[in-house]
Amino acid sequence: MPTIDRLQSDHYRIPLDPPVEDSMHGSMTHFEIVTATVTDSDGATGTGYTFTCGTNGGAIHDILGREMPPRVTGRDPDLIEALWHDLWWQFHYGGRGGPTVLALSAFDMALWDLKARRAGLPLYRLLGGHDPKVPVYAGGIDLHLSPSELVDQTHANFAKGHRHIKMKVGRDRLSEDVARMATLRETFGADMPLMADANMKYTVDGAIRAARAFAEHDLVWFEEPIPPEIPDGHARIGTEGGIPIASGENLRSLWEFRTAIQGGVTFPEPDVTNCGGITPFLKIAHLAEAFALPLTSHGAHDVTVHLMAAIPNRTYMEAHGFGLDRYIETPMTIAEGYVTAPDRPGHGITFDRDRLEEVRQ
Amino acid sequence: MPTIDRLQSDHYRIPLDPPVEDSMHGSMTHFEIVTATVTDSDGATGTGYTFTCGTNGGAIHDILGREMPPRVTGRDPDLIEALWHDLWWQFHYGGRGGPTVLALSAFDMALWDLKARRAGLPLYRLLGGHDPKVPVYAGGIDLHLSPSELVDQTHANFAKGHRHIKMKVGRDRLSEDVARMATLRETFGADMPLMADANMKYTVDGAIRAARAFAEHDLVWFEEPIPPEIPDGHARIGTEGGIPIASGENLRSLWEFRTAIQGGVTFPEPDVTNCGGITPFLKIAHLAEAFALPLTSHGAHDVTVHLMAAIPNRTYMEAHGFGLDRYIETPMTIAEGYVTAPDRPGHGITFDRDRLEEVRQ
Repeated sequence: MPTIDRLQSDHYRIPLDPPVEDSMHGSMTHFEIVTATVTDSDGATGTGYTFTCGTNGGAIHDILGREMPPRVTGRDPDLIEALWHDLWWQFHYGGRGGPTVLALSAFDMALWDLKARRAGLPLYRLLGGHDPKVPVYAGGIDLHLSPSELVDQTHANFAKGHRHIKMKVGRDRLSEDVARMATLRETFGADMPLMADANMKYTVDGAIRAARAFAEHDLVWFEEPIPPEIPDGHARIGTEGGIPIASGENLRSLWEFRTAIQGGVTFPEPDVTNCGGITPFLKIAHLAEAFALPLTSHGAHDVTVHLMAAIPNRTYMEAHGFGLDRYIETPMTIAEGYVTAPDRPGHGITFDRDRLEEVRQ
Repeated sequence: MPTIDRLQSDHYRIPLDPPVEDSMHGSMTHFEIVTATVTDSDGATGTGYTFTCGTNGGAIHDILGREMPPRVTGRDPDLIEALWHDLWWQFHYGGRGGPTVLALSAFDMALWDLKARRAGLPLYRLLGGHDPKVPVYAGGIDLHLSPSELVDQTHANFAKGHRHIKMKVGRDRLSEDVARMATLRETFGADMPLMADANMKYTVDGAIRAARAFAEHDLVWFEEPIPPEIPDGHARIGTEGGIPIASGENLRSLWEFRTAIQGGVTFPEPDVTNCGGITPFLKIAHLAEAFALPLTSHGAHDVTVHLMAAIPNRTYMEAHGFGLDRYIETPMTIAEGYVTAPDRPGHGITFDRDRLEEVRQ
C-alpha cells in the first residue's frame, strides 16, 4: 500500500477588485488561499485548499507546512478517519477551532482528492453519488450596493446562468435593507428564490425585528442573523420572525452543527474549507438528514459541488464571490441555476500555479 | 495619551524533563510559550504570554508577530475592550477559536500588565481587589505514575507547601484509577482536598461509571470527564455520578463558558492564556458568580493569582506542572496550600530572556 511521502503547503494572498463588503467584516480587499498537496509513495497527488477573508492565513500555513508533515508522512493515506482523528487530538489543545481546523480541512480535502484520483473516480461518485446536477445560488457580497446597483448585479448574475439570488442585509437602517429587497422583488418577481444574509449583525431581538420586516418578501432563508456564539438564539428568530434560519460558515466542527441544529438552525450551511474538511462535511450532511433538514453550503463551490452531488438532502449550493475562478483551470459553469459536478477524477480542480505565484505570500 | 508603539512576539519550545502524561494527550515532551510584549510611545512595557502542549505555537506566533502589529500600533493601549473587540472581529473568520484566541489572550494580558505597571499597581489591585491570599492546588500530570510514585509525588508537593492535590485518571482499567486514588486517601487522609482529572477521556456514560467508582473518595471535583464538544453532557455526570464537575481549559470564549455552565459544569476553570485573556477571564468569573458558582483555573498560575485575588468567588487555583518557573525571575512560593499575589506592579512576572534564548523556536 502507498504511504504519504510529502505534504506541501503554499500560501497566497489574492486581491479583490473591486473590494466586497458585508455587515461584520466591512470592506474586504484581499482573500487568502492556503493549499495542501499530498504526494504518496507512488507519486500520486491530491490537492486541498482553504481560504480566509484576509487574516489567519500565515497561521494556517505554519500548521500545514511545518507542523503537520512530520505527523503524517509515512502514514496510509486511505485511512482518512484515522488520520483526521489523530490530528484533531494532536492539535486539540490550542487548536480546537480557528486556523488549526482550516488547516485540517485543506489536508482532509487533499486526502479525499488523492483517493478519488487513484480510484479514477470523480469525488461525488467515490462518496456515494446521488445526482451530479446541483442547484446553485449567487452569493453576492453586496451590502455597499444601492438598489439600482443591486439590480445590475443581479442581471449580470442571470447572464452568468444564475436563477437563485442571495443579497446581504444589515445596513444601519433596516428600511434600506427592506427597500433594496423590495427593488429586487419588483424587478425579478415574487417567484425568484431569494435569500438574505446578515453576517451575524443582529441581536436575537434585532433579528426578529428584521425578519418580520423581510417576511413579506418570502425569503428562502435568513442567514447568520446572529453570531454563532449564541446557537440557542436561532429558534426564537425562526419562530417569532417567521423565516427559516441558515447558519454554519462560522461553525468549526460536527459538534457545533449539532448544537446549532438543536438551537433552531434549519438550513445548515457548512463550508468544506473550514468545518474540518470533506470528512466532517458529509457527517454534517447526514446529521441534517437525520433531522430532516436540507443542506446548503458556503464557499469553495468548485469542490463542494461534489459533496452536494453525493447527498440526497442538498438544497441550493452557494457560488461564492471571491473570484478564485481566475486561478483555476476549468471553473464551474452555471446553466439555468444549476451546475453539474465534473466527471474528471478527484474534485477535478487544477490551480493555475504560475498565476498564483504572482500572489505568493 | 500614549499609543501602542510596538508589539513584539517570541516563540520558545521548552523541553519537559521528565515528560508528563495524561489520558488524551499521551506523553508530552515539550511545551511552547509564545510571549507578547507591548511597548507604548512613552517606552513603558507590558508582557503577556500563552502556552501550548507542543503544537500550534508557530501559528500563534505568526498572528501575534506578523498579523496583529499593523492592526494595533498607534492605538490607545488603555482601551482594551475596544482593542479586544476589534481584533476578535477582524480575526473572526478562520479565527474564532484555536491559535487566534491564544494569540489574543497573550496580547490582552500584555495590555493589562502595561496598564497596571503604568498605574504603579499590582494587577489584582488594579482589577478591583478582593484578597491577595489565594488557595492553590498541585495539578499533577501523572497518569503514568504507579500508586507508590503518586504517593512520592504528593509528599514532594507537600514539601513545596501544597495541601490540595489533583491526580489524573483515565487509565484503560478503571480499577487502576480507583486503586491509585485509594492509596492517596489511605496515605494522606480523608480530609485532604482531592480532585481528579480525566482530560476528556470518557463518554457520558463512561464518566458516570467512573464518577460512581470515585464517589467514596469524596472528590472536590471531577475535571473534564468528557470533551468540550458535548457541553450538555455534564449535567447527567454530575447528577447521576454524584460528583461536582469542573471544565474549561479547552473552552475558548465567554460564550462557550455560558453554554458549559448551562450544560452542568459547576466548577468553571478558565485559562487566562487561552480563553481570550484577562478581559474574558474576569467576565467568566462574573458569569460564574451570577450562577453562584466558584471559579477554579488552569495553567499560568503566576498571572492567574492576580485574577483569583481580584474576585470573590475564587476557589482553588491550579499550580500547573509545566516548569515555566525555571524561566521566571521570581516564581510563586506556596505556603500551607496558599499563595499570595505579589505586590510588584503589573503581574510582576519577568522572564529570564537569556535562558529562554536557548530554546527559541
